[in-house]
This record gives sequence, structure tokens and C-alpha cells, in this order.
Amino acid sequence: MDITDLETPYALVDVERVEANTRRMLERLSALGVSLRPHVKTAKSLDVALLSCGGKPGPITVSTLKEAEQFAQAGFNDILYAVGATPNKLQHAIRLSQSGVDLKLVTDNVEGASAIAQASKEASVSLPTLIEIDCDGHRSGVKPDAASQLRAIAAALNSSTPLLAGVMTHAGDSYNCKSIVAIEAMAEKERSGIVQAATALRDGGFDCHIVSLGSTPTATYGKQFNGVTEVRAGVYVFHDLVMAGLSVCKESDIAFSVVATVIGHQPDKNWIIIDAGWMAMSRDRGTAKQAVDQGYGLVCDARGEPFDDLIVSDANQEHGIVSRRSGGLIDPHAFPVGTTLRVLPNHACATAAQFDSYQLVRGSTNIFGEWPRFRGW
Amino acid sequence: MDITDLETPYALVDVERVEANTRRMLERLSALGVSLRPHVKTAKSLDVALLSCGGKPGPITVSTLKEAEQFAQAGFNDILYAVGATPNKLQHAIRLSQSGVDLKLVTDNVEGASAIAQASKEASVSLPTLIEIDCDGHRSGVKPDAASQLRAIAAALNSSTPLLAGVMTHAGDSYNCKSIVAIEAMAEKERSGIVQAATALRDGGFDCHIVSLGSTPTATYGKQFNGVTEVRAGVYVFHDLVMAGLSVCKESDIAFSVVATVIGHQPDKNWIIIDAGWMAMSRDRGTAKQAVDQGYGLVCDARGEPFDDLIVSDANQEHGIVSRRSGGLIDPHAFPVGTTLRVLPNHACATAAQFDSYQLVRGSTNIFGEWPRFRGW
Repeated sequence: MDITDLETPYALVDVERVEANTRRMLERLSALGVSLRPHVKTAKSLDVALLSCGGKPGPITVSTLKEAEQFAQAGFNDILYAVGATPNKLQHAIRLSQSGVDLKLVTDNVEGASAIAQASKEASVSLPTLIEIDCDGHRSGVKPDAASQLRAIAAALNSSTPLLAGVMTHAGDSYNCKSIVAIEAMAEKERSGIVQAATALRDGGFDCHIVSLGSTPTATYGKQFNGVTEVRAGVYVFHDLVMAGLSVCKESDIAFSVVATVIGHQPDKNWIIIDAGWMAMSRDRGTAKQAVDQGYGLVCDARGEPFDDLIVSDANQEHGIVSRRSGGLIDPHAFPVGTTLRVLPNHACATAAQFDSYQLVRGSTNIFGEWPRFRGW
Repeated sequence: MDITDLETPYALVDVERVEANTRRMLERLSALGVSLRPHVKTAKSLDVALLSCGGKPGPITVSTLKEAEQFAQAGFNDILYAVGATPNKLQHAIRLSQSGVDLKLVTDNVEGASAIAQASKEASVSLPTLIEIDCDGHRSGVKPDAASQLRAIAAALNSSTPLLAGVMTHAGDSYNCKSIVAIEAMAEKERSGIVQAATALRDGGFDCHIVSLGSTPTATYGKQFNGVTEVRAGVYVFHDLVMAGLSVCKESDIAFSVVATVIGHQPDKNWIIIDAGWMAMSRDRGTAKQAVDQGYGLVCDARGEPFDDLIVSDANQEHGIVSRRSGGLIDPHAFPVGTTLRVLPNHACATAAQFDSYQLVRGSTNIFGEWPRFRGW
């Protein structure tokens, strides 16, 4: 079956590229002497997660308890749920733990820690928990130098039985770096911050086994991970235009695209209209603040070769407007109605979430299989 | 069951408001002597579509053939697929027609029309088709005054058997209007444009039974629909912050919200962190260009009362950052960890698409049921 044979829009994955991306990250971190705990939130696919772990279930990171459940059923037993656990999710977490999963939670405050300790005690189930550290000011977490706050949370976690399992941080601000040098500096800030927090806890008499950090940019460019036990990264399995704009990957590393078809043209405006709008591409405009704005995605031919400056410049629910990045002529005859195109996404996590499965190719236009994915909470 | 009893994030619908919104639109158009063909792409829910049609299946508009299939199975037999039909979807459309659905397609060019006529002939199945008209320059369609182009498309459609069913347009640019007066003018532009196109076809000797137009703003404020046979509108069933920003509804008409929980705080930044990020809210930033930018959504208490100027000002995949619209103090003690909040979306079509069902209330916090929804292509 050829990629032109299916109804569009649909999600396409080049398995060769996923294999290369996952192998590269495993080899890099192995050489630096630190483990990888891939974040499976990007692909939400068992097949991709297995490649990320080197072929068999290994430690993973999830962004929802739905992911934890799906991956646990497939044999992944070491799972970090990396979003601060709300009280309304603790019974679900307890059920997962009781089913035999080593599920680790996250909190950054005494209230959350106390709720976890209380639920754990009442159910007689251990809910090992990491304290989230704010290394770059972009989201949640305790400041690395807030030793007394860290120890208060640790004490709340360990109030009846020791639940403190370690510390974790995510340098999400690395997505805003303007150079590789800046990403390297961010990686060192992330590393030194998490090590400082672990030290503060240990100096306070607390065990702190897990020292976890990561983002795709810092995992790609961090020079050393001394004092760190594991690195987390997610989007590197597919990569995307935001990562390419950060020089974290090349466009030719991007493994995930949306296949679309030309519906019509507005020749007076130099527009091609395609059947992939924001429902297919997502509303993510992550490249808008980068040096090269890719609109809602970079347009490629059916084989995946980008057309220089052709982007999805605007989007309605099921319509994409394709034009040149800075205006300029488009010959409608070069893109007749029915032409198959591929569109590279700004943000693979957001775009992939719009689909229920991936059609699979290996560096060609021949579809040889399909990987299911899931979503929701 | 109370709305605080469920794991967050989830989608909540106030059925009382959906009933009021759908009743209001039916009554308005009935008084103006024109039929309503609701666009079911917003809710993708049989229950909502039934309310939109006044209690039993009626004519509907869909944005995907998946919607056509789901609604056909539920007894909706008069369906307009309002996105230009690509050649790779015609066999699917033929299967739907063969199953007994009166499925109408759309095209705006001779190539598309010829492909439809050819497929229709080969399968001996009638695929009635509307020509899309571009009344406001925002997307696809033939200009209303391009009489010879319109007739060429009509001739291609009718080449072996008469397939031309009429004309349709959508004043999508009404979303950019700055006042009710501007929306009224846009509605008249939409009406006069589609009537002009229909007249050009009739003057060319073509039957043109259906004269279809619509968008929620123009359906709400259009003063008369002379010459029009049907009005299409979609988002009015739920309404959203973009519609409220356009004065098309009041905030208290918005029937759809996302229920979220406080995870933690960053008191030095006056941030509340909640468990609804862009995966739950979608990446839609439709109010960014309006007078009042609502971030990723307007934050309400558990009963649905907005907190003045509290918005989701930034979002990661599963984290929302809540702050005051123009900065300013937030007392973390007023929003302890575990607090249930509701968030009104910028764009109901995009946010609802992130969920697989709606939990239901009737003007209270008591959940009395659930409506499934679907998605995909």
C-alpha cells in the first residue's frame, strides 16, 4: 500500500528515523554513564516506548495515570508519573500500586506530601514520591536552595513510613534557548540545581536515591550528568520543527508527519488549500517565537522532502492554507487537486495527540503497518 | 456524584445551557423563515445534535466523513460534508450514499467536480454537490461574481447526470469582527454573496436548489436571509470565550468547561498550578487577538462563577499556570492544593476535541450523566 492510497489526513511515522533517534539517545546517555527514563507522553505508543527502552520494557515517565495504566498492562513496571499528584488521583495511584506497578509520584508542597502520606497509610500501600525542583522558573517545583522547604516536604512524606524516593526537575525553559551554547548552560543549571536539592535533603538526614532531570534539548547537549541517576526526555523519539529550530535535530530526523491532500487553490492569493487544518496539526504554534516561523507546519512532498519555504500559514478546523513563508508565487498546476503532501509538525506531542494510530513507512512511501496510540486521562 | 468526586481534568457540559443555546437559535431562524442545518463538528455528540435539531434527527453539517458515518448510524439521513472532497474520499462517500444517506459534497474547482462526476458515474451513485463560494476571502471558494467559473464547475458536475445541488458559503471572517454592527454587515455580505452566486448559476441554466450559508456570529446577528434556504452554525451549542469576546453570547451562556484541580503554587510569582495544560485546553489562543486576552481559558470556581481576571496564562502539556490577567497578587491559601476549578475555553471546538465524553450537570455541581463523543477521520 502506498501513502497515496489512504484517506487523508492521517499520521505517518518513519520507523527508520524513530529507530535512529531512540538509538542515538540511548548510546549518548550510556556513554555518559547515566540511565534513560524516556517520557512516553509524546507517542503514547507501546511500540515507540519499546524502541526507547532498547527493545524491552524499562523505566518510563508518564504524564497521565491513563498512560501508567496502559503501559503497566504491557509489562512496564517502573513508572514515574511526573505531574504533581492531586488528591483526586491518589486512589487510582493506589490501585495501580496494588496491581504490582512500582509507581512513583511527584509533589512540590507539604499539603500534597501530607495527602500522599495519609492515603498511603490508610491503604497500607507505599506511594514512593519525588520532590519536584524548579531549576529554571518555568513551572512547578521548589527552588534548589530552599533547604528548609525541601526538608519540610520530605518530613511530611516520611511521617509514617519513608516515602521520599528522590528529586526530579525538568528544564522546560530549554525550549526557549537561542543557541547550543545556551542549551549546554541550561543543562548544567538543571544538573547543578537538582544535585543541590538532593544534597540539601541528604544533609537533612533524608535518603534521596533518585536524582532525575531532563528535557530533550538538555539530554542532547548536557556535557556531564555527575550526581544524576537518570535522564528523562520525550519528544526526541519523533523530533519536530521546534527541536530543529533549536538545532537539537535536523529536519531529516523528524520521524512524524501528517499526510494531507490538496483540496483546491486560491490562485490570486498564492494559496493551496489542503485537508489538514488545526484539528490534524493541532493549534501549536511553537515555532512562532523562533527565528524561522513554520506556521502550522512545513510542507513536504509525498516522499517527505520539504519544499523550501512552503508552510501551512493558516488553519481552520479541517482546512489548511499553504503558502510561501514570505508570500511569493505558487503555481497551482504544480499542486493539482488530489496531490498528496506531508506536513512536518511544530510540536510532535501536540500533533500526534490528534490521532489514534500511526501508519508506518521505512524511508519510502510504502506503508507496511500501523501502530495504535491512545490518549485521554 | 459531585463534580469534585472525579479525577481531573475532564470535560463538563451544563445541559441547561445547551438546551437554551440550541432553542434560541432554532427560534431565531424559524422567526426569520429559514431552516437550520447545525454543524455538528463542535460537540461531535449525538445528544447535542438531537437538541440542535429540536429533538429528532434533522439536516446536519459535518466536517469529516467519520462524523457523517457516526450520525448516519444514529438516523441522521440528510448530511452536508462541508469540506472540499478530495479524490481519496470519494469511495467512502459512495459507500455512505449506498447505505441510504443523502450525503452532499462540496467543491470549488473543475478538477474536483470532474472527479466527483466520474466517481459518481462509475459507481452509478448520485453524489449531489454544492459549489463553495468565497464570500469574505478567508479560505476556499469561488468568488460570487465569477459567473463563468461557477458555470464551468456546474457543467463538470452535471456532465453525465445532474449532480449540482446548490451553493454554500461560510463567513469565517466574522470571527474577526470588532462590533455587532460589523457582524451584521458581514452577515449581509455573506447573504448577498451566496444569492449572487446562485443567481449566476440559475441565469446560466442550472438548477440551484440549496442556498446555504452560516457561521455562529452571522447566524446570530443576520437581519434577514432572503434568497437563502438554510443557515449553518456550530459553536453556538456550547459557545466559548471567543464568542463572548465578539458579543455573540454572554459568559454565562458558555455550556462547556474543563474541570481541573490545583496541584501547587509559586507564591513569589503569584501563580497557581493546575492539572489542565494544553492537552486539556488545546493550544487554541483565539482570544489573543481580541480586546480581552483570556490566555488558555478563564478560571471559574467549582460552581462555574468566573474569578474576575484569573486566567490560564501559560500551559505545558499537563500543567496550567493560573495568574491574574495583568499580574497582581494571588493568595495561595484561597486556592489550596486539591481545590476544584472550572476553566472556560477560548474555542469550544478545539477544547472539546481533546476529550472522549462530557460529564453532565444542570446548573449545579451534581453530575447526573455522561454523553459520549468521538473524533478522528
